Amino acid sequence: MNRVLIKDVDKYISQKITVSGWVETLRDQKKMQFIVLRDHTGKLQLTNMKADDEKSRLISACSLESCITVTGIAVSAPNVKLGQKELLVEEVSVENFAEPLLPLAIADNTDDVSIDHRMDWRYLDLRKRDRLLIFQVQTTAEMAMREYWINNGYVELHSPKLMGHASESGSELFSLDYFDRKAYLAQSPQFYKQMAMSAGFDKVFEIGSVFRAEPSFTSRHATEFVSIDMEISWIKSHHDVMDEEEAWIRYFLQKIKDRHADEIKEVFGQEVEIPEGRFPRIPLAEVISILDTEMGYKVPQKQKGDLDPEGERLICEYTKKKYNCDFCFVIDYPIAARPFYHMRHEDNNNLTKSFDLLWKGLELTTGAQREHRVEILQKQILEKGMTLPPIQFYIDFFKYGAPPHGGLGFGLSRMLMKLLNLPSIKEVTYLFRGPNRLTP
Amino acid sequence: MNRVLIKDVDKYISQKITVSGWVETLRDQKKMQFIVLRDHTGKLQLTNMKADDEKSRLISACSLESCITVTGIAVSAPNVKLGQKELLVEEVSVENFAEPLLPLAIADNTDDVSIDHRMDWRYLDLRKRDRLLIFQVQTTAEMAMREYWINNGYVELHSPKLMGHASESGSELFSLDYFDRKAYLAQSPQFYKQMAMSAGFDKVFEIGSVFRAEPSFTSRHATEFVSIDMEISWIKSHHDVMDEEEAWIRYFLQKIKDRHADEIKEVFGQEVEIPEGRFPRIPLAEVISILDTEMGYKVPQKQKGDLDPEGERLICEYTKKKYNCDFCFVIDYPIAARPFYHMRHEDNNNLTKSFDLLWKGLELTTGAQREHRVEILQKQILEKGMTLPPIQFYIDFFKYGAPPHGGLGFGLSRMLMKLLNLPSIKEVTYLFRGPNRLTP
Repeated sequence: MNRVLIKDVDKYISQKITVSGWVETLRDQKKMQFIVLRDHTGKLQLTNMKADDEKSRLISACSLESCITVTGIAVSAPNVKLGQKELLVEEVSVENFAEPLLPLAIADNTDDVSIDHRMDWRYLDLRKRDRLLIFQVQTTAEMAMREYWINNGYVELHSPKLMGHASESGSELFSLDYFDRKAYLAQSPQFYKQMAMSAGFDKVFEIGSVFRAEPSFTSRHATEFVSIDMEISWIKSHHDVMDEEEAWIRYFLQKIKDRHADEIKEVFGQEVEIPEGRFPRIPLAEVISILDTEMGYKVPQKQKGDLDPEGERLICEYTKKKYNCDFCFVIDYPIAARPFYHMRHEDNNNLTKSFDLLWKGLELTTGAQREHRVEILQKQILEKGMTLPPIQFYIDFFKYGAPPHGGLGFGLSRMLMKLLNLPSIKEVTYLFRGPNRLTP
Repeated sequence: MNRVLIKDVDKYISQKITVSGWVETLRDQKKMQFIVLRDHTGKLQLTNMKADDEKSRLISACSLESCITVTGIAVSAPNVKLGQKELLVEEVSVENFAEPLLPLAIADNTDDVSIDHRMDWRYLDLRKRDRLLIFQVQTTAEMAMREYWINNGYVELHSPKLMGHASESGSELFSLDYFDRKAYLAQSPQFYKQMAMSAGFDKVFEIGSVFRAEPSFTSRHATEFVSIDMEISWIKSHHDVMDEEEAWIRYFLQKIKDRHADEIKEVFGQEVEIPEGRFPRIPLAEVISILDTEMGYKVPQKQKGDLDPEGERLICEYTKKKYNCDFCFVIDYPIAARPFYHMRHEDNNNLTKSFDLLWKGLELTTGAQREHRVEILQKQILEKGMTLPPIQFYIDFFKYGAPPHGGLGFGLSRMLMKLLNLPSIKEVTYLFRGPNRLTP
């Protein structure tokens, strides 16, 4: 008999059906046995009149979290709190007995243990209802992102994660022995997505893993994470990239709202809000001055003209109040704060055509127009104190005709963390990887 | 003025428009200049009445493959072979001059150089029309695959590529220094997608990079490739997984056909065919006997009961003739040919509940029902001569309630290679990685 999902049991009242799931609770009384069975769609009470038979003995033997398949008659039961229905058990089979001592409690939905303990037992931790919802929202978000891209003529890219060169910034690269030489793990698809512009792909996107050998222990860093990248050709400035990002964000937030608004409200207490109007775009120099004069905050000198996390938090507070927008583009970073490949303003060679996108105090995106003219690119590389040979392969991309282009990188887990108001990207990552964590 | 894509120029006849692209050819005559401009949507003739002016000098200076933006009047021109239209040039700006000596010819669309040379200059190689089409087809294929999954309640997974354990089979693993310990690059999301079953995610999919430290130099192997993985819960046998794969393949092939059938026919000479009816499912023992008696081929002994590539090719020839189906499931492999985690048949403990899917002679998929019962799993591990401690973390997934489950891995590039009838996965990989290739 085909399995019925618990959310659909209402359609089968008075019929014989089969359900499968995990034993969340068992009340084994003298005359009656009650199980709350859980699948990924809901919970259902299973009721059995106890007898001196194999079925009753099997139910008695069920430890919590055992996996069982049960056939019985679905009946309406107004006095049953859990959905006013129950299944009168006719047959039981146990697919897998759980060990009786669970290292992590699941039914109560509380998180009274450390996140490290929860990560050790992640497959039990993920059985809680709010965990699955996180990944259902992620699934919807990514699908909507891709819909936007495909509706707008983008090509999907899978760039290599193994690189023969220690490119962008050697200090945070993992290296490995690759047959008779060294290979490096990509920190981003940056160079390869730009190569697609030179190849004439016009617009590309990629959702894939990237790696950072950074010994960071914050709520927003990982050694491996999912990077969302886009790159587009024939732009006039970084504002074209920002226009595209705004439209894209509106599109996928709307889809998340359409599909999950009620559940997100119920489980995480959060409204999914679609930003109206153009996001504010404020030059960094102006941001620093606003922070100083309006918010009484001086960005630390060591930031070299970049913002620190506190500055990011405060400028979002300011733009929320002033423009009623949770999003804020900080634009035109000084060259010291940006990599060599960012294009510079024609009228101010100390400023790059760059931007960060902040959401509710957190940086989600770094983007820019890229320098596509070989001579200027070489000059900028040398000015940064770098040498040409290690990235000659990248410079070559622009030697045989390359269009003006720009793009951005976007942190999937940071977006989810803010969307659901969770304290750390660990909560929204299937299996987190940090300097101290490589398991399970 | 907003850029018009070349495919849309017909809509702007008699209007002033701007186009951008690459200079594919230039005929610089005494009185007239003709450029064929290429963008990702087509080619267009640009015509200029030569004069003693900056515009004409700029056009004369254009090397092939330079990137230019041109404004002019689109006119109907019945005598112009290329689309019976042209653009009468009014303004030209050169975004990027190409170096005059191209290491790879693009316009003629011939491939008279080695694939290695083409891979060295991949960003030029990719400018040929059939290359972009490959990746447009890939984009459509992946989008359709995800549509199927999402319509059927799957959750998207991003499993870690950095692992703390040398799991499945240590011999083909890349290892790296990870702060104070060793990490390994995932060969597949196998263990992590099974973990999602234990977590109650019910059905999951992942499209992501995996890594194999295999010194293979065939047309179908790479050290890094895109693996497509699905895993589903509460199955009754491996036949449920095959049923799901058949439905999924029909869905995405239909979408490819709807969107690209004409272009694929024109460029690659291939029909996109949607398989009708159930794919044949033949036990391996029977396949070996058919090969022997019907095809006069004896599978080499060293295959230990598995098929060799020649056997795969021949059985597909046989099933094509007998069942008129390009797809063929070979099922029920002996335990020696399968990993420890494949479930075994109740009535024949030497056979696994496993399958390979072959398409036009090539293996696309390996799949199976997995063993989810801890005691049997441990027994199978020990029988394989392995020890428990290195994979205890994996065994633990099944200790606290795990449903019966199964799934498959599917090679994206192998599918594209067969779909477009190309000789190697190198042709359908954006940037190929092999034992001798880590660049560009």
